[in-house]
Amino acid sequence: MFTLKDLVRRTVLTKRHCYAVCGDDGNLTWEQFQDRVERVAGALVAAGLNAGDRVAIMSLNNAIYFQFLYAVIWAGGIVVPINTRYAPKEVETCLEDLDGCWLASDEHFVTLLRSLEPQVHGVKGHFFVGKGAVPEGYTGFGTLLEGDASLVAGDPLTTDVALIFYTGGTTGQAKGVMLTHQQLTYATQQIAAAFRTDKPLCFEDRYLHSAPMFHMADGIMCFVTAMLGCANTFMERFNVPEFVEHCNRFSVSWITLVPTMMKALCDYLQETGKAIPSIKGIMYGGSPMPRATLAQIMDVFGDVQLFHGYGSTEGLIITLLEPKYHTLDEKNRRLLESVGKPFHGVLLGIFDADGKPLSYGEIGEVYVRSNGVMKGYWRNPQQTAEALRDNWYHTGDAGYISEDGFLFLVDRVKDMIISGGENIYSIEVENAIGTHPSVDEVAVIGRPDSSWGEIVHAVVKCKNGHTLTYEELAAHCRQWIAGYKVPKSIDFVDDPLPKTPVGKINKAAIREAQEKVHLLET
Amino acid sequence: MFTLKDLVRRTVLTKRHCYAVCGDDGNLTWEQFQDRVERVAGALVAAGLNAGDRVAIMSLNNAIYFQFLYAVIWAGGIVVPINTRYAPKEVETCLEDLDGCWLASDEHFVTLLRSLEPQVHGVKGHFFVGKGAVPEGYTGFGTLLEGDASLVAGDPLTTDVALIFYTGGTTGQAKGVMLTHQQLTYATQQIAAAFRTDKPLCFEDRYLHSAPMFHMADGIMCFVTAMLGCANTFMERFNVPEFVEHCNRFSVSWITLVPTMMKALCDYLQETGKAIPSIKGIMYGGSPMPRATLAQIMDVFGDVQLFHGYGSTEGLIITLLEPKYHTLDEKNRRLLESVGKPFHGVLLGIFDADGKPLSYGEIGEVYVRSNGVMKGYWRNPQQTAEALRDNWYHTGDAGYISEDGFLFLVDRVKDMIISGGENIYSIEVENAIGTHPSVDEVAVIGRPDSSWGEIVHAVVKCKNGHTLTYEELAAHCRQWIAGYKVPKSIDFVDDPLPKTPVGKINKAAIREAQEKVHLLET
Repeated sequence: MFTLKDLVRRTVLTKRHCYAVCGDDGNLTWEQFQDRVERVAGALVAAGLNAGDRVAIMSLNNAIYFQFLYAVIWAGGIVVPINTRYAPKEVETCLEDLDGCWLASDEHFVTLLRSLEPQVHGVKGHFFVGKGAVPEGYTGFGTLLEGDASLVAGDPLTTDVALIFYTGGTTGQAKGVMLTHQQLTYATQQIAAAFRTDKPLCFEDRYLHSAPMFHMADGIMCFVTAMLGCANTFMERFNVPEFVEHCNRFSVSWITLVPTMMKALCDYLQETGKAIPSIKGIMYGGSPMPRATLAQIMDVFGDVQLFHGYGSTEGLIITLLEPKYHTLDEKNRRLLESVGKPFHGVLLGIFDADGKPLSYGEIGEVYVRSNGVMKGYWRNPQQTAEALRDNWYHTGDAGYISEDGFLFLVDRVKDMIISGGENIYSIEVENAIGTHPSVDEVAVIGRPDSSWGEIVHAVVKCKNGHTLTYEELAAHCRQWIAGYKVPKSIDFVDDPLPKTPVGKINKAAIREAQEKVHLLET
Repeated sequence: MFTLKDLVRRTVLTKRHCYAVCGDDGNLTWEQFQDRVERVAGALVAAGLNAGDRVAIMSLNNAIYFQFLYAVIWAGGIVVPINTRYAPKEVETCLEDLDGCWLASDEHFVTLLRSLEPQVHGVKGHFFVGKGAVPEGYTGFGTLLEGDASLVAGDPLTTDVALIFYTGGTTGQAKGVMLTHQQLTYATQQIAAAFRTDKPLCFEDRYLHSAPMFHMADGIMCFVTAMLGCANTFMERFNVPEFVEHCNRFSVSWITLVPTMMKALCDYLQETGKAIPSIKGIMYGGSPMPRATLAQIMDVFGDVQLFHGYGSTEGLIITLLEPKYHTLDEKNRRLLESVGKPFHGVLLGIFDADGKPLSYGEIGEVYVRSNGVMKGYWRNPQQTAEALRDNWYHTGDAGYISEDGFLFLVDRVKDMIISGGENIYSIEVENAIGTHPSVDEVAVIGRPDSSWGEIVHAVVKCKNGHTLTYEELAAHCRQWIAGYKVPKSIDFVDDPLPKTPVGKINKAAIREAQEKVHLLET
């Protein structure tokens, strides 16, 4: 009975003079925001948008995108933010998969979309959410703002889909994750509750969208800010000096970053002597925070609150490592490597390959149960049935739960290597190799082997000016991990390892490339 | 995808050594609690309980009731806590309305239930959740604990009904409010988030169920404690000296009371010089906290956290006045009379009699929209359609929302008096009369009048040893409220005013009685 529209209405009711948007193009209060969103929604209805219509958006972060996203939802449509780093063919596949859609784009992607359109069936219209001249054939945002709010007939049901996020594009066919109003408000509320600390995220805060909004990690914050009535500000792309400048210009107090970005930011602040005194909360994810980076953050940001979240597009929010564990105390050394405890309202289980539940400390696949778990994959009942089995969402992540209830992730299940009957988690091996001071990047994969089933193989890029031999690195590994986990082969490369669109090392691409390269035999 | 069972499982996963129950009959950890609940659920299944079966419970608060409640839910049944203050005929009506049910009772209600059974169709079995010898024909809790947990086949859906609370029994036909797993977990999470203060309700706390568990105000705390992993302790009936003794024996830290109970408690503590140093949070509702009582609380409890909640069985949680507004500062004087702001995830609206939305400050009926709103009334589609119209729950409460987003309740819509075309809210008149130092209790109702439509009529009980005349009290009122709101007639009575089972003044009974008495004319 409570939709994403009600979330905005509630904030307008209780905090209408607070800011929804601030930035170079001016500020909007939540009341002004809702008024604009309603008018744009009316224009979308007038243009022929029906309830349940998909609206694909290809845009870098900006305030118009933010308003347009809510307007589509207001009109009863489904927002489909497309990963702007996808290759053209991947974008085409997503658009085609939508089975008829509307297109929205900023100035950066109009050309790309035009090149794809001949291959995409059922495009119903074009909206421009960028800067500068409105491209031909597109309806500009200024025109949309002249819409008639009264044309919006009613509200969606809470069980209606509000968003589709495509995921997994780089490791196979992209799948459209369907998320309903209820699932999104549920997850939003969990995050809002987690941010209720003694220095809570509140109406006085300004959240900077510097991570791409097409990714759930930042995308969900579009709803969290609306629930808490705090202001949104936007950067098209993350870039350290501009980030610092933006934060200081708009007194940004809350951000989302991955640890590698945090490190680059701290390095820059330490080198330049600059500061961002307004920051009070930092959400991160993707990997644990190295203690060295944590020390740097404490040096640069003082007692800033760090939140380590683990989630996925399909499961939304899953676990959280709260600020209190982000210290350099010896007692937190172990916990800092975890992803924390399940949110209230989220149940976890660890299961073996046969679906048998495992106990504390035993490694297996992480299953999740919550009201935030997706409705399913768009037009993909088979993959849906695979992911949502036995009343659990199967994350594909491998990990264990400690006796004190913390979740430790060790790997993707499909990245587990089975060698001579032993399960080997590639991340364990990667961590061992990564401790060598000459190593810059590393990826560990399994390679088919006639006698062992699979063997452990590593791909390593040394730091500039450093070199290593197989023997040196294998000897180093033996100090950290059991002999059977030490790579049987290592490939030393000069170029940075390939990355996925969200900046993770792309193991699928490495596996493919490795099939073609010479192996340095043991 | 997340049920009330998962709520317990999550706590067992993360905090299994924390206490679920503590009291004179021993303590149970959450792990032990789940183990017992699973076994009792197995016994219920073995006894023939099917998914969706209704299990009516008539019992005062105790730890067995608490376990049994969860066991019914675990087995897929629907718990129906019956108001133990209902008259026999009212209990019979509820049981008959359930259209077949199981009965559970403690030692206090076995006789009553036996007397009603001949008139109730389809009773399937009897369970004893009390102390002492197991009555003939009842299955004792000890026997239920020997059940086989593996007999429980699976989990309910989140959209399945978990609880039915009967409400409104004294003012008409009782209606069974159906609440699903999802609605209850949603409301539970809202409350858990609200209690995340700088001194949060957490696993170290002990919550005392002293208000009756058959009422939603305390009933929902059975789930909040499970979500947060804190301990439950129980009192059969509220009684000030025993309450103080119980709190100190078990280091109770969190309680739910109504303002009149708070006042009695403070009076007692001040008179006896006793203290309850362990209390850190107090939830109250039903009426605003008088400033005099607040001053007493601050004197007795120091900086205890006070939460004023407004909700209803149908709407679950609606608004909350947070601890920070509970001060004697002049700036909070006005806000203390409000019921606070809507919870995150709850939208309010104020509507006139024609269903037209009203603006800030305008008085009308309070409508609510949230994921905690009931599924409907059990076997009562007509009343359901009446209460859940136009995608809103119609509370029947009259109030207004201030410019700063606080909800002020003024009356029940049906208690509004229309006199000479003016809307008069009885509570306003009651408040004016209540400020007179000689007044002990007051109720204001409308009486039919040929020239005015209705006239304002008051029923007043003076404090012992005090007397008042109509002229004295009317003159007092004119200092506080407009002339047209001053009662045209006042009836002075010697006996306390009749109360509803939850302790509120029973206006329906007063209206009925007044039709028979002589009016003191103006």
